[in-house]
Amino acid sequence: MNIAVLVSGSGTNLQALIDAQNKNELSGRIACVISSKPGVYSLERARLAGIDSVVLPTRKSGEDVEAKLLEALGKYDIGLVVLAGFLSILGEQVISKYRNRIINVHPSLIPSFCGKGFYGLKVHESALQYGVKVSGATVHFVNEIPDGGAIILQKAVEVKQGDTPETLQRRIMEEAEWKLLPEAVRLFCEGKLRVVDNKTIITEEN
Amino acid sequence: MNIAVLVSGSGTNLQALIDAQNKNELSGRIACVISSKPGVYSLERARLAGIDSVVLPTRKSGEDVEAKLLEALGKYDIGLVVLAGFLSILGEQVISKYRNRIINVHPSLIPSFCGKGFYGLKVHESALQYGVKVSGATVHFVNEIPDGGAIILQKAVEVKQGDTPETLQRRIMEEAEWKLLPEAVRLFCEGKLRVVDNKTIITEEN
Repeated sequence: MNIAVLVSGSGTNLQALIDAQNKNELSGRIACVISSKPGVYSLERARLAGIDSVVLPTRKSGEDVEAKLLEALGKYDIGLVVLAGFLSILGEQVISKYRNRIINVHPSLIPSFCGKGFYGLKVHESALQYGVKVSGATVHFVNEIPDGGAIILQKAVEVKQGDTPETLQRRIMEEAEWKLLPEAVRLFCEGKLRVVDNKTIITEEN
Repeated sequence: MNIAVLVSGSGTNLQALIDAQNKNELSGRIACVISSKPGVYSLERARLAGIDSVVLPTRKSGEDVEAKLLEALGKYDIGLVVLAGFLSILGEQVISKYRNRIINVHPSLIPSFCGKGFYGLKVHESALQYGVKVSGATVHFVNEIPDGGAIILQKAVEVKQGDTPETLQRRIMEEAEWKLLPEAVRLFCEGKLRVVDNKTIITEEN
């Protein structure tokens, strides 16, 4: 199973996937890293791991980014698309063609603090402003609704008094995102995920 | 600190409070149990524990239930009102007079699956229909907005495949509600809860 990891920044979730691959825990192969921005550290991580990378600046006008993305996914014979801190919205063609083969990690317990406008630090700012004592992360399939696809895995993380958006973000990454994402990729690559009625059934016995 | 526990049914959360009191873990005294329904098992639990009880049928027309509730709370010199499966809505006078002295337990991780219309099994039906992998319980102060008051404690509980609303409800009670509620009462009675900007600050050092 060939995997494409889509990134926009420093790529700590990409690193978690590379580390899992190096420990033979992924049951698939990261075939390419696709970045929506040039010059980000994710591209260096890919280079150091010997993984091909593609830069597809989504803000560049006059180019059909979606066509180029589809082209890259086809070229590498991608069976699973992983959004790992990818800050652009995927086009409908990609979502439709790769239905139930695109997964995303979101830094909250969906349906809390998710949907349009909730990304990056904004998610954690909102959780702290609300005053929740538990937050967490969610890995889910991607459909046409922002953060609306079937939930694959979730993990709760304690919110501590004195947390800032930054400290909460870091704890959720360390305790949840970096564990859930490789685990979800493994389950997918081993054929253990099935989506029924926008819910994910996990069959640990294959 | 005198505590009133308001109930409407069998009273498993009331029992958790009685058990904590018997182990001297409550730092307060359950002075009366107030039921919105006659004949419920909560009243028997109160009797067995030697606790006074009051029945205030909220559906009875022609009676000022709120005045009778205020009268009962005054008579027992109540400092903390605990809603433990109380299926009626408190009146504005009670909420106002006992501001930040009324706590409720809700069987989800607020802000998920809460607010108007979300009570009892409906909460768990909604969580299962959404397909979350983690749910839980929340103890919070009561204000004028349904489930909108400051969150005191939350605890996550795993949703398992094959869960029905009933099995999920039971697991959330056992793993979260019956632990969180006595703990929140203890913190309140020991003066360790402070509400600022609709968020609860817990000071373990008194």
